[in-house]
Amino acid sequence: MNNNHLKQCDKLVPASYIKQAEQSCTSINNLISHLLEHKKIPEDPWRSDIIEALLSSLSQMDSNNFLSSCGAGEREGRIFSELVASRNYRLAHGVGRSGDVTAVQPKAVGSSILNQLCTRIVLDIIRQVGAGTATSCIIVPMATGMTLLLCFLTLRASRPKAKYIIWPRIDQKSCFKSMISAGFEPVVIENKLEGDELRTDLEMIKEKVKHLGSENVLCIHSTTSCFAPRVPDRLEEIAKICKENDIPHIVNNAYGLQSSKCMHLLQQAARLGRVDAFVQSCDKNLLVPVGGAIVASFNKDGFIENVASTYAGRASASPAIDLLITSLQMGLSGLKQLLKQRKENYNYLRDEMCKLAEKHGEQLLATPHNPISMAMSLSTLAGMEKHVTEFGSMLFTRNVSGARVVPLDSKKTIGSYSFTGYGSHCDQYKCPYLTVAAAIGMNKDECQLLTKRIDKTFTEIKFKNNSAKNKIPSTITQSSQLNN
Amino acid sequence: MNNNHLKQCDKLVPASYIKQAEQSCTSINNLISHLLEHKKIPEDPWRSDIIEALLSSLSQMDSNNFLSSCGAGEREGRIFSELVASRNYRLAHGVGRSGDVTAVQPKAVGSSILNQLCTRIVLDIIRQVGAGTATSCIIVPMATGMTLLLCFLTLRASRPKAKYIIWPRIDQKSCFKSMISAGFEPVVIENKLEGDELRTDLEMIKEKVKHLGSENVLCIHSTTSCFAPRVPDRLEEIAKICKENDIPHIVNNAYGLQSSKCMHLLQQAARLGRVDAFVQSCDKNLLVPVGGAIVASFNKDGFIENVASTYAGRASASPAIDLLITSLQMGLSGLKQLLKQRKENYNYLRDEMCKLAEKHGEQLLATPHNPISMAMSLSTLAGMEKHVTEFGSMLFTRNVSGARVVPLDSKKTIGSYSFTGYGSHCDQYKCPYLTVAAAIGMNKDECQLLTKRIDKTFTEIKFKNNSAKNKIPSTITQSSQLNN
Amino acid sequence: MNNNHLKQCDKLVPASYIKQAEQSCTSINNLISHLLEHKKIPEDPWRSDIIEALLSSLSQMDSNNFLSSCGAGEREGRIFSELVASRNYRLAHGVGRSGDVTAVQPKAVGSSILNQLCTRIVLDIIRQVGAGTATSCIIVPMATGMTLLLCFLTLRASRPKAKYIIWPRIDQKSCFKSMISAGFEPVVIENKLEGDELRTDLEMIKEKVKHLGSENVLCIHSTTSCFAPRVPDRLEEIAKICKENDIPHIVNNAYGLQSSKCMHLLQQAARLGRVDAFVQSCDKNLLVPVGGAIVASFNKDGFIENVASTYAGRASASPAIDLLITSLQMGLSGLKQLLKQRKENYNYLRDEMCKLAEKHGEQLLATPHNPISMAMSLSTLAGMEKHVTEFGSMLFTRNVSGARVVPLDSKKTIGSYSFTGYGSHCDQYKCPYLTVAAAIGMNKDECQLLTKRIDKTFTEIKFKNNSAKNKIPSTITQSSQLNN
Amino acid sequence: MNNNHLKQCDKLVPASYIKQAEQSCTSINNLISHLLEHKKIPEDPWRSDIIEALLSSLSQMDSNNFLSSCGAGEREGRIFSELVASRNYRLAHGVGRSGDVTAVQPKAVGSSILNQLCTRIVLDIIRQVGAGTATSCIIVPMATGMTLLLCFLTLRASRPKAKYIIWPRIDQKSCFKSMISAGFEPVVIENKLEGDELRTDLEMIKEKVKHLGSENVLCIHSTTSCFAPRVPDRLEEIAKICKENDIPHIVNNAYGLQSSKCMHLLQQAARLGRVDAFVQSCDKNLLVPVGGAIVASFNKDGFIENVASTYAGRASASPAIDLLITSLQMGLSGLKQLLKQRKENYNYLRDEMCKLAEKHGEQLLATPHNPISMAMSLSTLAGMEKHVTEFGSMLFTRNVSGARVVPLDSKKTIGSYSFTGYGSHCDQYKCPYLTVAAAIGMNKDECQLLTKRIDKTFTEIKFKNNSAKNKIPSTITQSSQLNN
Repeated sequence: MNNNHLKQCDKLVPASYIKQAEQSCTSINNLISHLLEHKKIPEDPWRSDIIEALLSSLSQMDSNNFLSSCGAGEREGRIFSELVASRNYRLAHGVGRSGDVTAVQPKAVGSSILNQLCTRIVLDIIRQVGAGTATSCIIVPMATGMTLLLCFLTLRASRPKAKYIIWPRIDQKSCFKSMISAGFEPVVIENKLEGDELRTDLEMIKEKVKHLGSENVLCIHSTTSCFAPRVPDRLEEIAKICKENDIPHIVNNAYGLQSSKCMHLLQQAARLGRVDAFVQSCDKNLLVPVGGAIVASFNKDGFIENVASTYAGRASASPAIDLLITSLQMGLSGLKQLLKQRKENYNYLRDEMCKLAEKHGEQLLATPHNPISMAMSLSTLAGMEKHVTEFGSMLFTRNVSGARVVPLDSKKTIGSYSFTGYGSHCDQYKCPYLTVAAAIGMNKDECQLLTKRIDKTFTEIKFKNNSAKNKIPSTITQSSQLNN
Repeated sequence: MNNNHLKQCDKLVPASYIKQAEQSCTSINNLISHLLEHKKIPEDPWRSDIIEALLSSLSQMDSNNFLSSCGAGEREGRIFSELVASRNYRLAHGVGRSGDVTAVQPKAVGSSILNQLCTRIVLDIIRQVGAGTATSCIIVPMATGMTLLLCFLTLRASRPKAKYIIWPRIDQKSCFKSMISAGFEPVVIENKLEGDELRTDLEMIKEKVKHLGSENVLCIHSTTSCFAPRVPDRLEEIAKICKENDIPHIVNNAYGLQSSKCMHLLQQAARLGRVDAFVQSCDKNLLVPVGGAIVASFNKDGFIENVASTYAGRASASPAIDLLITSLQMGLSGLKQLLKQRKENYNYLRDEMCKLAEKHGEQLLATPHNPISMAMSLSTLAGMEKHVTEFGSMLFTRNVSGARVVPLDSKKTIGSYSFTGYGSHCDQYKCPYLTVAAAIGMNKDECQLLTKRIDKTFTEIKFKNNSAKNKIPSTITQSSQLNN
Repeated sequence: MNNNHLKQCDKLVPASYIKQAEQSCTSINNLISHLLEHKKIPEDPWRSDIIEALLSSLSQMDSNNFLSSCGAGEREGRIFSELVASRNYRLAHGVGRSGDVTAVQPKAVGSSILNQLCTRIVLDIIRQVGAGTATSCIIVPMATGMTLLLCFLTLRASRPKAKYIIWPRIDQKSCFKSMISAGFEPVVIENKLEGDELRTDLEMIKEKVKHLGSENVLCIHSTTSCFAPRVPDRLEEIAKICKENDIPHIVNNAYGLQSSKCMHLLQQAARLGRVDAFVQSCDKNLLVPVGGAIVASFNKDGFIENVASTYAGRASASPAIDLLITSLQMGLSGLKQLLKQRKENYNYLRDEMCKLAEKHGEQLLATPHNPISMAMSLSTLAGMEKHVTEFGSMLFTRNVSGARVVPLDSKKTIGSYSFTGYGSHCDQYKCPYLTVAAAIGMNKDECQLLTKRIDKTFTEIKFKNNSAKNKIPSTITQSSQLNN
Repeated sequence: MNNNHLKQCDKLVPASYIKQAEQSCTSINNLISHLLEHKKIPEDPWRSDIIEALLSSLSQMDSNNFLSSCGAGEREGRIFSELVASRNYRLAHGVGRSGDVTAVQPKAVGSSILNQLCTRIVLDIIRQVGAGTATSCIIVPMATGMTLLLCFLTLRASRPKAKYIIWPRIDQKSCFKSMISAGFEPVVIENKLEGDELRTDLEMIKEKVKHLGSENVLCIHSTTSCFAPRVPDRLEEIAKICKENDIPHIVNNAYGLQSSKCMHLLQQAARLGRVDAFVQSCDKNLLVPVGGAIVASFNKDGFIENVASTYAGRASASPAIDLLITSLQMGLSGLKQLLKQRKENYNYLRDEMCKLAEKHGEQLLATPHNPISMAMSLSTLAGMEKHVTEFGSMLFTRNVSGARVVPLDSKKTIGSYSFTGYGSHCDQYKCPYLTVAAAIGMNKDECQLLTKRIDKTFTEIKFKNNSAKNKIPSTITQSSQLNN
């Protein structure tokens, strides 16, 4: 209802009441104006009905929703199911055009605005959480791995000779696949053990660069967020190597947006060295369903635009819709609250896990550089890998999801590549261990429940283990069950 | 409510009534059983509440929705916004795992079932509409272009030497980008003019195969559905060439699922020659929002599985959710009705366009091999390319979307490749023309409205054109405005 | 999004595209303007998203949805549950004020507009379906019976001496209760058998009026829509009696809106005599859930306003919301289509039931004055009332709902009143019978299914009956099972 | 999905995963079982998807949702609009039958269960919040006023001679209308001023009882929740008078469920004297939209059942749906939290208003017996009633809703009854005043905002008042603007 409509209502209710209602409409319109003007995450959360009204307005701007639309093409955004139409807010045309996933669609102005607006809001979020000088980003409707792949494909055009990607090892499968699926040969840099932490071996990187020749290296592919006892890569130093050797640098920041430490690392790396792009998951950082990733950059060299134009064709608008709704409903205040809470939970969980470790004669590994994940040794179970693995299964059946139990000597082959100690980011860590994370959106109750269940389950498995040790002295089957 | 619940209700209402209600619950349960048993599109449409109940049941099987869930990982499917949760039926984990986009997720059993079930239903649809011997398919949460790219990346692993893709020209940008983004060199096969039709130049293909060497050719990339006056490629013959030369064959069947002719071509090609995979859009064929594509195959050689495992990481469940809802709500009867209606509309629209062409001294180009798209000559405007282009704009502002006006001599550069006559699938077609399509979901009223608006607009533009011809005899600006 | 917002989007997408989108917004705004201007059911159906946008706009005009609202009262429209908020479009204040169920609420301008608008649309519908000179109506959030009660309470104020309501018998319980709950004494006028039809005994009415004295009679309470073999009351004649004797006339038109015959009767009665108000059900006529009724009038004597002000306090907005949505989504064209279809179904069902009756040696009772309901004799079962009743139960368990099997000699007591032959609208009809109705919203398939199931069930029950007759010659238990 | 369905899924995902999912389904089923078993508000809140699944299950038990339903009646629960169907969970049959608003409908088993279950849960809530010995209740789909009217109509049957209702004055219009609309003569008992409080004049009640004769009095109609400076009636003493004189006692407990004091009063009154029924609003107490009321009783004398059977016909299921959803989503823990918060807010608001009063030279009236509402004197404005009224308007335009400004000498006529000092519950209170309430669902921020806005507005109005006093010494217009 616009002002004319309100005037028309004068005949139905007294004009003075209309005036009051008009004020309310104006205040809501101002909210929308402010958003369109600033293109930033709003300070305060929006009410869900206002968000839906905005989406409804946008969908009315897409040609499939024109009252007098006449579709003569092969793709006219027709939706058969009313359920599907409704859950997609009748936004049928997706985002992007054949040439560019960020391009404006003449047929779908509303969808296009939605995507542009959402991208700008996400950029604002990236800046707010720590990458203050980020210049641009795009939302890609694929998960992190495929988005990394897209970055590698994009780099190929400007580095036709390059065959290798230098990659400090991180045992996360889609990461690795992103390189081999794109047709490149990963050059694995094994991590160095420093105290309990696994950290980047900078010397080895330098050596490999020299050995392979800069022009043959597509990029260095580093990682921030990761499972303890691995810690974020030494981003500053890698960035410097990249700068010095004129090698692109792509950072896998999968769930690093939620951590000010990871974001600080990125910001510093960009300031002191070279970062071409950093990639993060929408779901892991912003509490939306799986489906999208964000590629962001500190530069104005057109790399982000190239990534966008490497994506061939349109894409689902779902990730952008979910992100837009979430950021409006969260507000900056809500986001900051969540980040603060996450830090508190991390500290709380660490303390609780410490006590737990102590109680069971284990220790919480000292991984101060990892701001999200932590690991507790399972030395008690060392040599009984069967029980390590079973511990993992038992936790899973007790509805503890995402806790990873990492045995020693697990082997894994991906494509034609073989890994030893897979899951532990190194060939042989000093002990089996259990990792847990304090991720965004977790609440304190969950931390309590988690330590309680681990406590109970560990007690049981140790009992089994002790019985077993006494009875069957040998034959340890090794099998890994990795939740990834 | 299960049977125990019903019994508990005995205390609230008379037992005899409960019995009747029980019957109803049983009949709905039977519906679901039948679906799970046969994994086919149901004959009759399902009611929307039953579909939603099924989705709700599935989502309860995902760990993020367990009542006693305790998430210790970095990705626990937490959803911040209730709006987002609700529109995604709380299915937060997407589909696939890091290694494979079709893999089952232990954390997300419901999502996994949904994806498997949906895939099986889509395979049934593919068979029902004409590819009777199709053996498998996957749903990829990317548009057609990116999905073709994924196929090319998959082929690379088994054909490490291959650099070229042989490609009978089709002027559709994402098609072309799928090849260059994947890092291959398209070998363009110009089409042959046969009557009004542009058809595959088989001799040229053979020559190129011989010239380049089979092992250097990644695949032949052919097309079925396309804009007139181009017609579907000679699929049988291409398939035979592929078979004889041991070259993979990827078919872009973008919106061909809706046409029994395109499907017949595919089926024949598979029977007589080699077809490795055919790719189709979900939105263009099955009336869902943009976002997904289907890769299907007639073989059991594991290619489809390889494509799935080339996709690095999880993916949005949205395309699968939209497809599942739509196929249940449509039913086979509904789908057949839509296909029948489309054929009737095609005939109706062709007849109407014929009359229109005659009225305006133009002709409907004779393209009997194209079952969806048709083209009307704009010879009247020949030599006044400015007006050709303006005609397109005028149609667009009159809410005719998807009609394409193709001028002569339009030039286009994609990457490092240049095309003359871009949009017309050949360097120089004999006249400018207008294309319209009779696509699935269009209704007869739209056909009428369409011809009426074209008629009116063409009358106007001809008037302008005549005035212009009389006044300004020279200086024709050429610019193309392509709706793609 | 208003025009200023659209302009702001200029920075996100090209201005020319915005212009097109603006056109679309304008055309939707015009739709709303037209509705607010004319306050009539729109000719064509509205799309559901536009309806929801209208409701959302209205809800923003209620104080509980003001962004800066500050509630200091005891009733501030706060809604705890987001589910409840959403399903009620955040319209929390209901309709009406303490003094009047149609009064405008200063706190709830949107709800007030909704109610006024809906009332005007309903009045338009009443006129369109036959009561062309109706002058006003109100929507009452109670079912028909309670709404009749409200009318009687309203009449009391102006007729303090009146104790009696003259009521041509119709065996529908809530009808009867409306009079006794209001504190009046019903004076039952038994129906006259004319052919197979039960019709109004006008002489008896006149006699009772004379006997009781006009001033002691609150009103005559007549009925249009009813189950065969009763037919609509002789409305014209009753209306004349009312006019002549200065007695109010309230018509129970429960499901008569769907029948042009019932509406014609009303219109004629109003033209020739006195009709103070006619009451109809929302659910039975307009395919919404149970919950509301409409009181309408042909006069400008303030009776409708008095009814509104007799209702003490606010009321649920649900019936108005359901009605508004339905009338917009139906459109006049949809409504007319439904009415036409109902007539066709009536004829079809009558013909099928005729054949069925003939097949089973029964007859379809000749009730030409009843435009909706029809009855088939069950003479075969006469004397075996147990089987008559069982026939009804069997139909019900076979999911035939709403078919009524009426045995002879059923007795019923309501309050202190006793009826013989209850269900048949007379003390003793000539045979037991089965009634079915062709109501709005039924489709032809249902008619077929219905006759098929009756056929099958009747065959079974006759078989039982014959066996029983041969075996057990006596002891007939009489019990009625009435579906009302 | 039941267990058989889960087994069928074995073919789609590994059986071990299914087992985990099965556990989850079981835990949700247990939740539902517990609810059906105990029929009480659950301790902990339910998730919205589980609530919707329950509603969906229930709706499948209604005949309009049977897959093979065949409707032969005039009311078959057909819903035209998918929007309407969806927002009503396809529950179309409403609640009750023609004879009784709580009766089970054979056609609508799901709706019937819903209503029974909801009623039991509401009874549990009533007990939990203080009326521990309450024995039964019904939910009536009408607001408080109409529900009181229904109680009076019910009493009429057993007290045919009674014409009067004794009513301690409370200036709330629908209260008063409930009596006159039902056809009774209210006997107004003016309140006594005790300190600042207006309290029940028990002597006057006794006198009236004696004067009128018990048998001529339908009931005493008392009130708990009310605006200060009136306080809840002396319920114990009234209840004793009722008991002694064999007069029914109906208590208007409109928004008293939220106050332990009001509930305690009721409980004591029932213990020591006679309370036939107490009536409360659903929206004011349980944060649902306007539309329903609850009649409850401490007795087992069938009065509640009689009220149910006085309601003629079916009724909207909306209030029951909203209540059921809300109570499940709130949980007992949520409800208790809200009640606790309300008490805290009351104290906070009282303290803030005290400071405000002091600042402005006014006083917060001492009304310790009123647990919800409080009043601040506006003595400054005494004699300038125009400004008192304007103060109210100004607050309203500043989005303060529900604050009531009560001038002296306001007159009001309802029906044939005239009141002096209307709004202040007495002919002439000692000063004009402003009331505000701390109602359930209000939050502390609102309290702050409220006092801030009152402060600001009062400062303005006093400035105007002072200017006016100095300039125009006389002519005070008296008009009341009451927000009721």
